[in-house]
Amino acid sequence: MIPTLRTTTSLDRMGMKRSDEAYISGLRDAPAARFLVLADAKPVINSNEAKTEASIRWFAQKELQDLGLPTADALFLGVERTTGVGHFAVAVSEHRAKNAPGGGAIMRPIVDLRSLAMQGVMSADDLSLIGQAKALTHWHESTHCCGRCGGTTMIKDAGWKRKCWACGQEHFPRTDPVVIMLVTDGERCLLGHEGRFQKEPRMYSTLAGFIEPGEDLEHAVRREIFEEAGIDVGEVRYHSCQPWPFPHSLMLGAIAMAKSTTINIDPAEIEEARWFTKADVQLMLDRKHPDNYWVPGQQAIARALIKAFVDGWWK
Amino acid sequence: MIPTLRTTTSLDRMGMKRSDEAYISGLRDAPAARFLVLADAKPVINSNEAKTEASIRWFAQKELQDLGLPTADALFLGVERTTGVGHFAVAVSEHRAKNAPGGGAIMRPIVDLRSLAMQGVMSADDLSLIGQAKALTHWHESTHCCGRCGGTTMIKDAGWKRKCWACGQEHFPRTDPVVIMLVTDGERCLLGHEGRFQKEPRMYSTLAGFIEPGEDLEHAVRREIFEEAGIDVGEVRYHSCQPWPFPHSLMLGAIAMAKSTTINIDPAEIEEARWFTKADVQLMLDRKHPDNYWVPGQQAIARALIKAFVDGWWK
Repeated sequence: MIPTLRTTTSLDRMGMKRSDEAYISGLRDAPAARFLVLADAKPVINSNEAKTEASIRWFAQKELQDLGLPTADALFLGVERTTGVGHFAVAVSEHRAKNAPGGGAIMRPIVDLRSLAMQGVMSADDLSLIGQAKALTHWHESTHCCGRCGGTTMIKDAGWKRKCWACGQEHFPRTDPVVIMLVTDGERCLLGHEGRFQKEPRMYSTLAGFIEPGEDLEHAVRREIFEEAGIDVGEVRYHSCQPWPFPHSLMLGAIAMAKSTTINIDPAEIEEARWFTKADVQLMLDRKHPDNYWVPGQQAIARALIKAFVDGWWK
Repeated sequence: MIPTLRTTTSLDRMGMKRSDEAYISGLRDAPAARFLVLADAKPVINSNEAKTEASIRWFAQKELQDLGLPTADALFLGVERTTGVGHFAVAVSEHRAKNAPGGGAIMRPIVDLRSLAMQGVMSADDLSLIGQAKALTHWHESTHCCGRCGGTTMIKDAGWKRKCWACGQEHFPRTDPVVIMLVTDGERCLLGHEGRFQKEPRMYSTLAGFIEPGEDLEHAVRREIFEEAGIDVGEVRYHSCQPWPFPHSLMLGAIAMAKSTTINIDPAEIEEARWFTKADVQLMLDRKHPDNYWVPGQQAIARALIKAFVDGWWK
């Protein structure tokens, strides 16, 4: 089971060429160049009337210029491998997008990435490009100023670097590694219910947390599980990973073997944690559980970990 | 093979208690509390005369007060599991440490972490604590000001958060995920020689690079190997990981199968890359290669990946 939110390979990111201004402006000013518009970090999309299919609404540079939206600082996403066409993202406020002269009609629908990924209405390639643009955009918004001196930073390398106007410090995009882990006692698995799932009281998922400075994956798994659920963890095995652009994380998925089974939750972190049998979890995956318990959808690596547990991945 | 630089488990980081000021100050002001001093990010250590053994030079709070070094903003590393003693780090300039009244004698030797890890003279626990403190210290130095508004940030949660005085934005420690990968064609492995190894012209190592926003591990491995060496990579398997506090990375180690073998390096990234046989690599591990080629030491995950290749880890 591969989650919906994964990394596209249809574009070559051309990392070596980002600092080549002539190359980038050549791509950007080519008539075939395509621009994705993020309005308050939500993409402008096309969708059919029934809203069962959606795709990125790609704009031409000319269209954006006519709408008064700037493309000079467009973020470079990459070059399509087959056609050589440059792909960019432009971040604006939703207010500005909708109120651009003539923009009202073509700047909707605007839908957040999480909903698009959950609904399964968009291709993995399109979701991936929106995720890449969204993570980069959030980083730019949190790096207007230099953390070292407070000076204003300027965009560089087609959106992949910022540089402080005052002290010259360079800043690079941030990605936060997160551990997400299914803990099993051999027969059952530990799933939790977080306060932030309040709208979904019957949804249970794997536990997760940020990896701290100086930690490796195994340490972070054991620390988080002990902090959140009071369970001692022994062996930890890496399973898979997933970019998670909310706002710019890298989820490192693991399956871990419990050494204790008495749950003692930290109520500041999670509302509830409990052990579920394989039979229970299978019903939750199928959304047939008698108590209406369920697990995250195909957009999430959590589901891949839960499915791996049911399928006997740990041999 | 486990690298020297790994995560200690002797301290409990007590993440849930960092925001509890009374708890933290109680630990900090206890007579048994221990303080690690980083002078320009290098630890003050004890070592024997022959310099074959070294350990952290732990200070009492009273000692630091007598030297005029402040402990109020000490970074909380954790609590020793058996004794409950709080461990902290204090970051000062090397100039200030050495010139503290009476500090000259006890503030040396001051040795950088990389050398200590390479020389194999210090326990893994001590190296890990220095790494944790060093990564956190570097993050503080690069987050004096708020990236969002430029305002001054204040230290919070015993060193695990900063908060903007002006706009209230919270900032959390940064850890940069990096892929480091041994590429094999089944028989040989690809090792490179980077410009930054110029002092060590005969040292070859695995290639590595930062994971970008929106990427997963597999994508980052394939992109980096293609960018740096022009090799197409097929299957990628996660091997192990390692905290790498230079300044605050998490190295994610992988072994990857090449789909092509013609090397085409990017000279801006690496100086040379070549295929080595298992026999060659074994000689390099043993430092018996006839051309004096060698590979990184036991501090580095690169060596663990190289050894895994020689030992036939990929089945």
